[in-house]
Amino acid sequence: MIRLQYQVELAYEIRSPAGADFIFNVHAAQTEQQSVVEEQLVLSQPAMPDLATDSATATRFMRLHANLGQLNLTYRATVDIAHHRSDPTILHEVPVRCMPLEVLPYVYPSRYCQSDRLLRMAFANFGHLYPGYSRVLAIQHWVQKHVTFTSNASNANTSAIDTLVEQVGVCRDFTHLMIAVCRALNIPARMVTGTDYGADPALGPPDFHAYVEVYLDDRWYLFDASGTGVPMGFLRLGTGRDAADVAFATIFGDVVTAAPSINVHALEGPELETPHHLHRRALDCRGHARAAGRLRFL
Amino acid sequence: MIRLQYQVELAYEIRSPAGADFIFNVHAAQTEQQSVVEEQLVLSQPAMPDLATDSATATRFMRLHANLGQLNLTYRATVDIAHHRSDPTILHEVPVRCMPLEVLPYVYPSRYCQSDRLLRMAFANFGHLYPGYSRVLAIQHWVQKHVTFTSNASNANTSAIDTLVEQVGVCRDFTHLMIAVCRALNIPARMVTGTDYGADPALGPPDFHAYVEVYLDDRWYLFDASGTGVPMGFLRLGTGRDAADVAFATIFGDVVTAAPSINVHALEGPELETPHHLHRRALDCRGHARAAGRLRFL
Amino acid sequence: MIRLQYQVELAYEIRSPAGADFIFNVHAAQTEQQSVVEEQLVLSQPAMPDLATDSATATRFMRLHANLGQLNLTYRATVDIAHHRSDPTILHEVPVRCMPLEVLPYVYPSRYCQSDRLLRMAFANFGHLYPGYSRVLAIQHWVQKHVTFTSNASNANTSAIDTLVEQVGVCRDFTHLMIAVCRALNIPARMVTGTDYGADPALGPPDFHAYVEVYLDDRWYLFDASGTGVPMGFLRLGTGRDAADVAFATIFGDVVTAAPSINVHALEGPELETPHHLHRRALDCRGHARAAGRLRFL
Amino acid sequence: MIRLQYQVELAYEIRSPAGADFIFNVHAAQTEQQSVVEEQLVLSQPAMPDLATDSATATRFMRLHANLGQLNLTYRATVDIAHHRSDPTILHEVPVRCMPLEVLPYVYPSRYCQSDRLLRMAFANFGHLYPGYSRVLAIQHWVQKHVTFTSNASNANTSAIDTLVEQVGVCRDFTHLMIAVCRALNIPARMVTGTDYGADPALGPPDFHAYVEVYLDDRWYLFDASGTGVPMGFLRLGTGRDAADVAFATIFGDVVTAAPSINVHALEGPELETPHHLHRRALDCRGHARAAGRLRFL
Repeated sequence: MIRLQYQVELAYEIRSPAGADFIFNVHAAQTEQQSVVEEQLVLSQPAMPDLATDSATATRFMRLHANLGQLNLTYRATVDIAHHRSDPTILHEVPVRCMPLEVLPYVYPSRYCQSDRLLRMAFANFGHLYPGYSRVLAIQHWVQKHVTFTSNASNANTSAIDTLVEQVGVCRDFTHLMIAVCRALNIPARMVTGTDYGADPALGPPDFHAYVEVYLDDRWYLFDASGTGVPMGFLRLGTGRDAADVAFATIFGDVVTAAPSINVHALEGPELETPHHLHRRALDCRGHARAAGRLRFL
Repeated sequence: MIRLQYQVELAYEIRSPAGADFIFNVHAAQTEQQSVVEEQLVLSQPAMPDLATDSATATRFMRLHANLGQLNLTYRATVDIAHHRSDPTILHEVPVRCMPLEVLPYVYPSRYCQSDRLLRMAFANFGHLYPGYSRVLAIQHWVQKHVTFTSNASNANTSAIDTLVEQVGVCRDFTHLMIAVCRALNIPARMVTGTDYGADPALGPPDFHAYVEVYLDDRWYLFDASGTGVPMGFLRLGTGRDAADVAFATIFGDVVTAAPSINVHALEGPELETPHHLHRRALDCRGHARAAGRLRFL
Repeated sequence: MIRLQYQVELAYEIRSPAGADFIFNVHAAQTEQQSVVEEQLVLSQPAMPDLATDSATATRFMRLHANLGQLNLTYRATVDIAHHRSDPTILHEVPVRCMPLEVLPYVYPSRYCQSDRLLRMAFANFGHLYPGYSRVLAIQHWVQKHVTFTSNASNANTSAIDTLVEQVGVCRDFTHLMIAVCRALNIPARMVTGTDYGADPALGPPDFHAYVEVYLDDRWYLFDASGTGVPMGFLRLGTGRDAADVAFATIFGDVVTAAPSINVHALEGPELETPHHLHRRALDCRGHARAAGRLRFL
Repeated sequence: MIRLQYQVELAYEIRSPAGADFIFNVHAAQTEQQSVVEEQLVLSQPAMPDLATDSATATRFMRLHANLGQLNLTYRATVDIAHHRSDPTILHEVPVRCMPLEVLPYVYPSRYCQSDRLLRMAFANFGHLYPGYSRVLAIQHWVQKHVTFTSNASNANTSAIDTLVEQVGVCRDFTHLMIAVCRALNIPARMVTGTDYGADPALGPPDFHAYVEVYLDDRWYLFDASGTGVPMGFLRLGTGRDAADVAFATIFGDVVTAAPSINVHALEGPELETPHHLHRRALDCRGHARAAGRLRFL
């Protein structure tokens, strides 16, 4: 078990006279492995946030309408995390005939994970491997070898196909490519957004992060597609098919966005050891926010 | 109210020695507007189908494992349909701040409806229109004017962007483009698959069809994006974000597929009048099946 | 030296009242390695063909205007071919600083060969190899291993990027991918269209074919990207950057096209031995024709 | 006639120990309408530039090899320009049957101008217009209305299809889209790069620019697709199919590039009047340079 203190500060300048609508996903999820001990939300405007939790994924959404002017949002939470661990050697892939119905959509292609175009590629590279955890690990290693972590070489439109071709990207892009390859092999896979506590402090402060969950045996297992984080320190925010589902902020209106400020530190629990391979990487997983459209009416 | 007799016959030759898995969505949905009076399923193999209904969309899935050899499936149902009708002049778009949480995902981009790339186009063409039913109708008319119904000019990989550029396609492509434009304007939109009873018999037999539902006021309203069917005669099978969610058959394994045979006729109810503009169109909406991957083990 | 008798028959039904314009590239090229001993052109309409040869590539174009109705074209030629052969071990890549100016455009990306997107992929796969003939051969082998020859899985819009992702195609697609990878490594590469005499007769009759030329040392060398032909039996028609330059027929107007009929047989020269790997392949390289636009005015 | 003084300063830091190769196209072209009165080239390294002129387009290339370290290049020229002017009302489109052979390639699709995918769109929007200058003008106006000039919304990979869909870009993107639409209608069109003397000084200093040439009657006519420049003040550098052919600098090796500095002013000739619509635009057409690959050996 690890207890993390997580805080995010967001700042927006709303320029539409009629204000703007926001859908945030910055709340820590509450799951069997992650419990929110205490949390606090501070808004600079007297907005009435509308909170909801998606029952299937535990993603917590906050919708609010902000008026013309400045909106500052600070959310902080104390979160206990006890990741489930299994003996990897006994984790099997689940044949389609045995998959729970609610898992099936994660085998289908989605906006950024066009697995339907990768059937042949996935089968050629991974079809001969023994199904199960080790095959998923082989996919993860292949993605890490295939793609070079590079800031500003991809954008909000970049999909798994682009990353396969151009071989550069950030954690979001690694995640999309790994998901697409898994689905092409009929292995359910989805995207998780969170924060990445535990990376070497020399790499810079903790940041938003995106990683993969794969369904094996009877539950979802976490894989860090980009290999830039320490899974034991991941704090879960959103869970969905791909980045289209789990932007940390979706903005409807004319809004100027400042860079988010994120802070995560451990209050209790084991010292996380940064894997050696992380020591010299420059990380930049910011930029998951998605601005969706202009405000439409008064 | 109209009572339809719907029957579909599917035939497959399974060539994988270990058999193949299927997920079908050929069952008539049961909704407030559509009730299944009686139904019957005949399989040529002693397979044990696994039936499930998605609670959010009422889509009914049937999963089954078939052995090496021939699989014939006949499903027939007697279905009562009473489409909800409203006075279009009073139907409003719903601002994001008022949208039910479960409707929000239908504003996000999906595999074949990349609405995030169409924000500017949608706003330029429809941003000045008064929000509501009439604006959605304007989008539908624009799609019908913009795209020419053409068989074999698109394929399973064709997306709304392709259809916008190349301006040809079948009902699936019209549907994807209309959905993408709606979402770009923050109007929730989704895909429905069904059958198209009521078109002029001279056009050929009834067929699978795909059309659009748009969320207005407090419920989903149906729009026939391709304008090739008679909405009063639509019988609903599946409902989802786009074609990735609602293939009538998803096949896992090495399988040869024959063309489906579909029959729909009215047992009771008003004679549907085929709109004049449908009389000279050649329709071909077949080909929604999606073959997903090879069977992996056994 | 080999002497080939080549004949092609094309048939079109022109439906535009004003007739249609055609640009053909079915004439055998005349180069240092290939000389046209005799040739004959028969047209079913009294059209006045306009013949021209591109001085840079030796591609011979025939432009003609045909009237409403049927147009049949038969071209036959007796052609002597003596392919240049070198000791591959001494063929070097040419550094950019030494490349003849007229060769440079073949390093740049083109319509179907988007080499600019493949820099990283090409460098990761082939950057460590010793430059020269052996590296080009490694690229060719990689393309043949990566892509599966499949008819009707690609179309006139398919580019090297699509083929890289989906890993299926015909000779045109193999050719585009190999060209794109070469250019990404700054190796000049271009497309040649021709016919493929010499493949096992069991595979079907000779057909149009597309293959690659790569600039090494001081001249262009031929590589059969798809590995479906016998290079010694290739008869050259057109040479260009990619399929956009060397369609065998470009049609301007409303025209119905019949499948071309091609015949090639040897009059003199060595028996060509079909490599063993060709014996069980099904070939289909037809379909290079490109219909460009509707006729514009009377 | 106008006499312009043009100067460009480029600065690079070569980091490959073996040096780097460059192909520049910064020399003023010499054509019937543009004559170079005097010019001067200053290099900070004792490199031996290799100069060549493409006979078909008059584009002047300079190739040079630079050593590890800093390379500064200053080119200045005094250029007399007397643009050819015609009565637009008498300019006709040329039917394919009458087009000079060397003009034909400009009807074909190219890397960034995929006209083959726009046949239907072009015909639907412009097929009914009377062919000739006025139709080309209609295309130009449509492009200007359709696309919004926006810096940093497109990149080196952006093509005419992307610009059609996303409706944003800089002069390069307007140019590609206008070229693609013209070619889809069988109107030969090509890209010119140059400088944009004459825009309102309030808009910032002169800059590199990209615009369109269309073949009408018996010569090429200039169209400023983005409408951000004053055609009378355009000084021609390169001419090609699209940006793939006419980058002002193509770099082979590991090189850090500084922003170019450009200066153009009139020595003689009429005061150019900046059209009113240019007065409030922010221009940024920089960024035509294309880095092509890593140096391969030495």
